[in-house]
Amino acid sequence: MASLLTFGETMLRLSPQAGERIETARELAFRTAGAESNVAVAAARLGADACWLSKLPDSALGRRAVRDVAAHGVETEISWSDDGRMGTYYIERGGDPRGTTVIYDREDAAVRTATPEEFPVEDLFAAAAAFYTSGITPALSPRLRETTAALLRRANDEGLTTYFDVNYREKLWSPAEARETLTDLFPHVDVLVVARRDAERVLNRSGTAASVAEELRRDGGHETVILTRGAEGAVAATGEAVLEQPAFEADTLDPIGTGDAFVGGYVAARLDGSAVDDALETAAATAAVKRTIDGDLAVVTPEEVASVRAERASEIDR
Amino acid sequence: MASLLTFGETMLRLSPQAGERIETARELAFRTAGAESNVAVAAARLGADACWLSKLPDSALGRRAVRDVAAHGVETEISWSDDGRMGTYYIERGGDPRGTTVIYDREDAAVRTATPEEFPVEDLFAAAAAFYTSGITPALSPRLRETTAALLRRANDEGLTTYFDVNYREKLWSPAEARETLTDLFPHVDVLVVARRDAERVLNRSGTAASVAEELRRDGGHETVILTRGAEGAVAATGEAVLEQPAFEADTLDPIGTGDAFVGGYVAARLDGSAVDDALETAAATAAVKRTIDGDLAVVTPEEVASVRAERASEIDR
Amino acid sequence: MASLLTFGETMLRLSPQAGERIETARELAFRTAGAESNVAVAAARLGADACWLSKLPDSALGRRAVRDVAAHGVETEISWSDDGRMGTYYIERGGDPRGTTVIYDREDAAVRTATPEEFPVEDLFAAAAAFYTSGITPALSPRLRETTAALLRRANDEGLTTYFDVNYREKLWSPAEARETLTDLFPHVDVLVVARRDAERVLNRSGTAASVAEELRRDGGHETVILTRGAEGAVAATGEAVLEQPAFEADTLDPIGTGDAFVGGYVAARLDGSAVDDALETAAATAAVKRTIDGDLAVVTPEEVASVRAERASEIDR
Amino acid sequence: MASLLTFGETMLRLSPQAGERIETARELAFRTAGAESNVAVAAARLGADACWLSKLPDSALGRRAVRDVAAHGVETEISWSDDGRMGTYYIERGGDPRGTTVIYDREDAAVRTATPEEFPVEDLFAAAAAFYTSGITPALSPRLRETTAALLRRANDEGLTTYFDVNYREKLWSPAEARETLTDLFPHVDVLVVARRDAERVLNRSGTAASVAEELRRDGGHETVILTRGAEGAVAATGEAVLEQPAFEADTLDPIGTGDAFVGGYVAARLDGSAVDDALETAAATAAVKRTIDGDLAVVTPEEVASVRAERASEIDR
Amino acid sequence: MASLLTFGETMLRLSPQAGERIETARELAFRTAGAESNVAVAAARLGADACWLSKLPDSALGRRAVRDVAAHGVETEISWSDDGRMGTYYIERGGDPRGTTVIYDREDAAVRTATPEEFPVEDLFAAAAAFYTSGITPALSPRLRETTAALLRRANDEGLTTYFDVNYREKLWSPAEARETLTDLFPHVDVLVVARRDAERVLNRSGTAASVAEELRRDGGHETVILTRGAEGAVAATGEAVLEQPAFEADTLDPIGTGDAFVGGYVAARLDGSAVDDALETAAATAAVKRTIDGDLAVVTPEEVASVRAERASEIDR
Amino acid sequence: MASLLTFGETMLRLSPQAGERIETARELAFRTAGAESNVAVAAARLGADACWLSKLPDSALGRRAVRDVAAHGVETEISWSDDGRMGTYYIERGGDPRGTTVIYDREDAAVRTATPEEFPVEDLFAAAAAFYTSGITPALSPRLRETTAALLRRANDEGLTTYFDVNYREKLWSPAEARETLTDLFPHVDVLVVARRDAERVLNRSGTAASVAEELRRDGGHETVILTRGAEGAVAATGEAVLEQPAFEADTLDPIGTGDAFVGGYVAARLDGSAVDDALETAAATAAVKRTIDGDLAVVTPEEVASVRAERASEIDR
Repeated sequence: MASLLTFGETMLRLSPQAGERIETARELAFRTAGAESNVAVAAARLGADACWLSKLPDSALGRRAVRDVAAHGVETEISWSDDGRMGTYYIERGGDPRGTTVIYDREDAAVRTATPEEFPVEDLFAAAAAFYTSGITPALSPRLRETTAALLRRANDEGLTTYFDVNYREKLWSPAEARETLTDLFPHVDVLVVARRDAERVLNRSGTAASVAEELRRDGGHETVILTRGAEGAVAATGEAVLEQPAFEADTLDPIGTGDAFVGGYVAARLDGSAVDDALETAAATAAVKRTIDGDLAVVTPEEVASVRAERASEIDR
Repeated sequence: MASLLTFGETMLRLSPQAGERIETARELAFRTAGAESNVAVAAARLGADACWLSKLPDSALGRRAVRDVAAHGVETEISWSDDGRMGTYYIERGGDPRGTTVIYDREDAAVRTATPEEFPVEDLFAAAAAFYTSGITPALSPRLRETTAALLRRANDEGLTTYFDVNYREKLWSPAEARETLTDLFPHVDVLVVARRDAERVLNRSGTAASVAEELRRDGGHETVILTRGAEGAVAATGEAVLEQPAFEADTLDPIGTGDAFVGGYVAARLDGSAVDDALETAAATAAVKRTIDGDLAVVTPEEVASVRAERASEIDR
Repeated sequence: MASLLTFGETMLRLSPQAGERIETARELAFRTAGAESNVAVAAARLGADACWLSKLPDSALGRRAVRDVAAHGVETEISWSDDGRMGTYYIERGGDPRGTTVIYDREDAAVRTATPEEFPVEDLFAAAAAFYTSGITPALSPRLRETTAALLRRANDEGLTTYFDVNYREKLWSPAEARETLTDLFPHVDVLVVARRDAERVLNRSGTAASVAEELRRDGGHETVILTRGAEGAVAATGEAVLEQPAFEADTLDPIGTGDAFVGGYVAARLDGSAVDDALETAAATAAVKRTIDGDLAVVTPEEVASVRAERASEIDR
Repeated sequence: MASLLTFGETMLRLSPQAGERIETARELAFRTAGAESNVAVAAARLGADACWLSKLPDSALGRRAVRDVAAHGVETEISWSDDGRMGTYYIERGGDPRGTTVIYDREDAAVRTATPEEFPVEDLFAAAAAFYTSGITPALSPRLRETTAALLRRANDEGLTTYFDVNYREKLWSPAEARETLTDLFPHVDVLVVARRDAERVLNRSGTAASVAEELRRDGGHETVILTRGAEGAVAATGEAVLEQPAFEADTLDPIGTGDAFVGGYVAARLDGSAVDDALETAAATAAVKRTIDGDLAVVTPEEVASVRAERASEIDR
Repeated sequence: MASLLTFGETMLRLSPQAGERIETARELAFRTAGAESNVAVAAARLGADACWLSKLPDSALGRRAVRDVAAHGVETEISWSDDGRMGTYYIERGGDPRGTTVIYDREDAAVRTATPEEFPVEDLFAAAAAFYTSGITPALSPRLRETTAALLRRANDEGLTTYFDVNYREKLWSPAEARETLTDLFPHVDVLVVARRDAERVLNRSGTAASVAEELRRDGGHETVILTRGAEGAVAATGEAVLEQPAFEADTLDPIGTGDAFVGGYVAARLDGSAVDDALETAAATAAVKRTIDGDLAVVTPEEVASVRAERASEIDR
Repeated sequence: MASLLTFGETMLRLSPQAGERIETARELAFRTAGAESNVAVAAARLGADACWLSKLPDSALGRRAVRDVAAHGVETEISWSDDGRMGTYYIERGGDPRGTTVIYDREDAAVRTATPEEFPVEDLFAAAAAFYTSGITPALSPRLRETTAALLRRANDEGLTTYFDVNYREKLWSPAEARETLTDLFPHVDVLVVARRDAERVLNRSGTAASVAEELRRDGGHETVILTRGAEGAVAATGEAVLEQPAFEADTLDPIGTGDAFVGGYVAARLDGSAVDDALETAAATAAVKRTIDGDLAVVTPEEVASVRAERASEIDR
C-alpha cells in the first residue's frame, strides 16, 4: 500500500525540439506531465511508495498517460471515463529573450468531473502517510474544488500529512478567485508550498522571504510553509525556525517540472524520516538534477541526488 | 480572386511512425488535416485558384494550420477567435488485421461558432465559380448547420457550382440526425459526392452503384451525383449518362485523405473546363497519387496526375 | 497478487530502422525483449495479473528493462545483482531474400546465477494460478537449469498450471543437450508449447501436426500440447481432442515476439476462464496484432484482439 | 497588392544537427534561405504585405523554396526557368573555437539570368511603398548587376523607399569589385544598411560608428544609413541625428539570418508608420528573437517582438 | 595494390523518408552514390581489392564522399580540385503509381575536367586485373570522353579485363550522341553490360534477349555481353554459350543501385576465379540483397550472398 | 606503410540525445570509441599515416567498428575472432550537477586474448616511426599485459618512438594494480602522457605540475612527460625545459575523447617534424575542436586546427 497519495490532472505534453517552432515543426516530442503525477514520480524514484489518483478518458491517450507514470514505479488508481478529454499542452522552450511559451489545451478534461466516490478512498487513506495536491486541481472546475476539499479533509481526519502547492495558473483563474478558494482549503493543509511570486500576487504577502513564510505559516496554522524562489533557493518556516536552502547550480535543459521535483524530493525524504533541513537539501538537489532532463518528469536516482548533495557530481566517472 | 471556395474545420493531426503505438511513441508526426482544406490544397496544386474559409483560435496552433494550407498556394480567409480550441486527431496506421485507429479530440473547436458574417462573403462569392463543403461541417454544431445552409444557399444564388461530400462520421452524429440535416441541404447542392457505405447507412439507398447514383441524382435534383467505392472506383450519374471510373492501383502508404484528393482533383479539372468523364479520371489519378504520400494532403503535381492517367509512371526517370 | 508468474531473462534490443544496417546505422531503436517478459506483457495487457521474476544488474540498464515491462502493468520481482551483464541483442529486419539477422550478446547475463532463494517464492506461488518459463532459461547456465527445474516443481506442487515453451535456440545449445535437459523438465509441465521445427530437430518427432502433438502429449503426460506452425496456424492436443487453429493473416512489420504474444494471449484467456478452443483463437489473434507492431512486445488491447476474432478490423473507424 | 517588394536569390540550406559534421552526418535539416526572402518573411510576419521576386528552376526544388516562403504569408512572383540550378548551401554550426562553416554551392543559379522584363514590374511597383535588395544580388552575375540597377532605379522613379543591405560575400567578389558596383547603385538607395566590417573592408570607411554612418549618408546622399555592429548594436544616421540602438541579449541557437531579421523588422515598422528610433528598436528585438530560432527565417510574432521591447520575456507564462 | 580499378563520378544523394516529399520534408537522408563507386563498394565487400579513381572538390563535401566509399574497404585515388562542384541528386521513392523521382543537380561537377595525368596511372594499372567504368562518365563532358577512352585503351594495353556498363541517362545526352561515343569506346571493352531498354533505344537492337546479347557481342568483338532485364533476370553471351540467369525475388526497399550491385558482384566473382555462370548467380544474389537496403550502396556480406544462392535466407537464425 | 601504429580495444558507444536518459530513451546514437582508435583517427585526419591494430569479433558489430575507423583514412590490421564480445559502453551527458554517466559493458571483449603473433608485427614495425597504446589495454586482461609489454619492447627495439597514455580507469583495476603493471612498462615508454589526477592517485606524485612532470620524466627515464590538466592546459617536461601549453577555450558539446584528440594531434605534429612546443599547441587546438563535436572521434581538419592556433575561428566565413 502506498504511503504517498497524490490527486490531480495529468496532461499530454507536445513539444518541438530546441530552436524549432510549433508553427513549423513536423515532429513533436510526446510526453506526460502534471504537477501531481510529477510529484508522485519524483517521490517514487527516490524510494517512496507513491500512488497517483486521477480520472482519465478510456482511450489510448489515457492509457498512455498511465503508462508513463507507472513505468517509474508509481501505483495508479484511475477512474476511467467515457466523457471528457485528455488535457494537452504544447511547449516551446525559447531561450532568452524569447522565453518559454506554453499553450494549454485542457478544456473539458475528464478529471473535471472526478468525485471522491470514484476512488477506493477508504482503503487508500487508511494505509497512507501523506497526501499531496496542488492549486491547479481546484482551479479546473467547481466539482474539483469540492473534491479537493473533501480529499484534503479526509486525509487530515485520517492523520495523513497533507501537502499543498499553490501553483497559481493565471490562465485558469484570477488571483482573487484563487485566493478565495485556497484560503478555504488551507485549514486542511499541513505543509504549504508556495512560490514567492504567487505569495505576492495571489496571497497578497510581501516582505522578506523569511517573514512571508513565517506569516503564512502562523496565519494559516500550517505545520510548515516552504517559500520557493527559483535560483535564489527556498525558505521554510517550521514554527521553530526559518531555514534557508540555497539552490544547487544547474545547466538548465528544461525548467518545466522543477518545482514538482522539489516537492517530490521533499516528501520522499520526510517519509523516509529526514528532518526538515535535510529534506530541503534533498528537494533542492532533486530539482537541480531535474533541470538537466528533458520533460516534466524527474527521472532521477537516489544516488544522483546524494551525489549532488555531496557535490561530487559533474566529473566523468569511469 | 479565387474561383473555388471551401468552408470547414481543419485539425492538427498527430501520428506515431509505422509500427509504433500512441501508448509508447515518444515522437509524433505533426500535420494539418481537414476535408475542406484538403480539397482546397488538392485543387490548388492542380492549378485552381482556391480559397479556404475557416475559424481558428488565435494562437500558434491556429497559425500552424494556416501555414500548412497556405504553403500549397491556397488563399486563406480566417476568422480568428479568442474562444474555442484547435481540433486535433491522433492516427495510428496499423496494417491488417489491426487496422487504422483514429482518436478524435475535436470538442469545442473554434469553428463551431462560425457565422457567415465573419467572412467577406460578398466579395468572395461574387468572384468565385465553385463552392465546396462536406457533411462534417454541419455535424459539428447547430450553429454550423445554419452557417453551412446559409453559405450553400448564397453560393447557389450567386450562380456558383456547389459541391458537397457526405463524409458521414459516426462519432459526430447518428445516421438519422445526419439524414435529416443533409436532406435539408441537398436542394442547394449541384454536385453530390457520397461513399457507397454512406449512401446505404445514412441515405438508405441500396441497389447497383449506377442505380443508387442515378436515383440520388433524380430525387435530390442534383446536377451530378458521384458515388465512390474505394478500390472499386467511382460512378457518376449526370442525368445524361452513368459513367464508370475505375480506381488506379496504388501502393498505399497512407489512405487518409484519399477521398478529399479525389474531390479536389475533380473540381480542379471541372474548373479548368474538363468534361465529367475527363474530370473523373483526373480525380481517380489524384487519389491514387495521394495514397503514396504520408499525411492527409495531396502533395501532387499536375505532371504526376497526367503521368498516372497516361500510365507512364513507376519507371525511374533519369 | 498476480495470478500468472513468469521467470526468465530479458534483454536490451537494439535495431536499425528498416533498410539500414548495423554496419552503417547512426541511430538504433532501443527496446526490451525476452520470452518470459514478453509473455507477461501480453497477458497483462489482456487483463491478467502478471508478475515477472528475473535477476538484473543494478544499473540504469537493468532499471530500463524493468521500466519497459512495468509500464504495461506487469508487476516485477527483481533480484538486483552487482555481478553479471544485461544481455543485449541486435536485430536487422531484412525482408526477402536477406532475411532477419539476430546478433546475440548475452554472455554472462546477471540472470545466469539466479536461484529460487532470491525470490519471495512462498508468497508468490501461494497466490498464483499459473507459471510460465521457456527453454531459453535452462539453456543459459547450469545454475538456471536447476533453478528452472525447482521453480517448475514448486509450481506443480502448489497446484499452479505450468506452461513451458520449448523455444529452442541453436546458438545456446545443441539439440541433444536441449533434449536431455528438457525431457527432465517435462514431467512438471502441464501445457507444452513447441514449434513444429523444434519438435522435429530437438524432440525428434515427425508425422502430421496432429499426431506429433498427440504423441508428445501422451508421452510427456502433459495436460495439453500446442504445436505452432507459423502461418499455418497451431494445433492443440488436449487428450480429448486435437484442435486446429488457423493463423489470422497479418501485414508483418516485425515478426519477433509473435510466439510469445500467442502464448501470452492463450494464458490470459485460460486464466479468464476460456475453453481451450476459445483461448487458441485469442492466442492467434494476439499474435496477428503483434506482427503489425515494432518491437517484441505485444502492445495490444482486449478490444483489438476481440475485433480481429470478429474479423471487423482494418476498416478505418471514424 | 504588396507594399514591400524584395528581389533576390534564395537557396536550399542543408545542415547537420549540433555537434555533427557534414563528413559524417546521415541526416541533414532541409530549409530555405536567402537575404531577400528572409527579409520578406520577417516583414510579413510582423504585418507587412510583402512580395518576393525571384527566378527559380521549374522543379520540386524550386517549388520547395516558394512553399517555405509563401507559408509565412509572403506573396511570391516567380519567373520559372528551365535553365539554371537551385543554389544550395551547407552549414555547420560549430561553437567556439570551431566556428560556423558555410559551404556555398550556388554556381549557375537560375536567378543569374533574371531580367526586369520577366516580372510584372509595372503593376508591382505602382502599388508598392518599399523595395529591398542586397549586395548579394549584383554579385551573382553581370546580368544581375544590370537587373538590380534597373529595379532600384525604377523603384526610385516610382517613389518607393529603396532599402539596400551591403551584405558583402568575399566568396563572390573582391572588395574592389564590390565597391565599384555598389557605388554605382548607391544613388538609387534611400536607406543603406551596412555592417561595420563591410564599411571598412569594402567601403574603406573607418572612425567611430557614428562618424562612419554619417559620412556614408552624406557622401552617398542617402536618406538614412544604418551601421550594424552585432552584439554592440546599431547606429543610424538620419541627417537630423545619429541614433544608437543597443542589441538585446539573446541565447544564440542559430546566428544566420540575424541581419535579415533586423532589416525585415525595420522595414515592417517603417511601413507601419513608426519613427526611425522606434523602428530600430523593433529591428533589434526581431533580430534577438531570430537568434533563438533554428534556420534563417525569423519565425516571429508581433507579440514576441513587442514583449522583447517591453523586456517582459523569458518568464514562463502559464 | 588493388585488382579492380573503377573510374567515375560520385554524387551526394539526398532523399526524404518514405511517403515524404522534397517539397515538404524537413529532413533529408544524406548518402553517397555513383555507378563506379557503387561497383567498387560491392566488389570490395565481396572480397575484391578495389580502388576508385575520381576527381572531387577539396571540401567537406568531397571528403564526405571519399569517407563513405573508403568505409567499405575501397581504396580511393582522388584528384582534389579547387574548381567544380560536388554533383548532387535528390530522390523520392514514390511507390506505384507515383514512381521514383530523381532530380539531378550535377552540372559542373569537378570530375568533368579529370584527365589521366591526374592519377598515378602507371602504378595502378600495372598491378590491376580489371577496370570498370560506365556510360555516365563519358556523358558528363567532352574532356571525360577523352579520359574514358584513354583509360579504357590503357587498361586494354596493360592486359586488364575491361568492364563497361552502358547506363544510359537521357538527362545527359541523346541516344544518338550516346551511340556515337559509345561505339568508339566498344573496341576497348571486354565485358559489356547493357540494360535491355538501353540496347533498344541507344544501340538500336531488338529481338530475343539471347539474340541481342549474342549480336552485340559478335559485332562489338567483346569477350562477353551481359543483357540485364530487371525482374526477368540477365542473359550473358560468351561466344561459347548464351547463359540465362533469373533474378532472385526480393522485397524492394530501394531499387537504386541494383544494377551496380549486379556488376560489382559479377566482377568480384570473376576476379575470385568463378566461371561466368557462377559469377552471374553471385551477381544476381548481390543485386537481390541490395534491393532490401536503403541507399545506393550494396552493404552486403559474402555470407549473405552465399545464403541467397543457397536459398537458405529469410528464416530468422537464432 | 603506416608511420604510426596504435594497439588497443575499441568499443561501441550508445548514447541517448541530450536531456534524455538511458531509462527512457527509445533511440540511441551509435558510434565507435576507444583510446587507441581515437588517437589513430585524430592523427590520420591531421595527415599521419596511421594504422590501428586490434582483435574483434567476426560479426557485423566488429565490422562496424572497423568501418567507422577506416572511414577516416586509418589502416586497420584486425585479428578476427570467433570468441569474445564487442565491448560496449553507454554514455549519458548530463550537464551540471548531474554530470556525465558512463556504463561500461566490456567484459570478455575479443581483444582480451590478443597476442603479438596475431599481427604481422615484423612488417608493420619495420616501417613505422611511432607506436601508441594506453593504460586501458594492459588493464583488460593478464594476456594483454603481456602483449602490451611485448609490443612496447619490440617498438623500442625497432627504434620507434613509443607513446603511452596512463588513462587510468578505476572500474578496471585498483591504483596499486595499475601502478605495479605500468611501472613495469615505463622503461619501454619514450613519451608518457598522464592526467594530473592519475599522476596523483596512481603514480603517487604531488607537487606543482612542472615538478611532477619533471620528476616522472627523470625517474622513468622517459624522453618526454606530458601532464594534462583539462581546462588548465598541459605541461611537458623534455629534459631541456618544462613547457606550458594553455588550453584553448571551447564550447563543450561532448568532452569524451578530448584527451585522445590531444595525443593524436601531438603525435601527428611530431611525425610531421614539429618541435615539442609546436606539437603541444597543435595538440591543444585539436582537443579544443574535438570538444565541439559529438562522439569520441576528432573529426577535425588540419585547416581547422591551424585556424584555432591562429585564433581566427568563430567568425562565419562566407
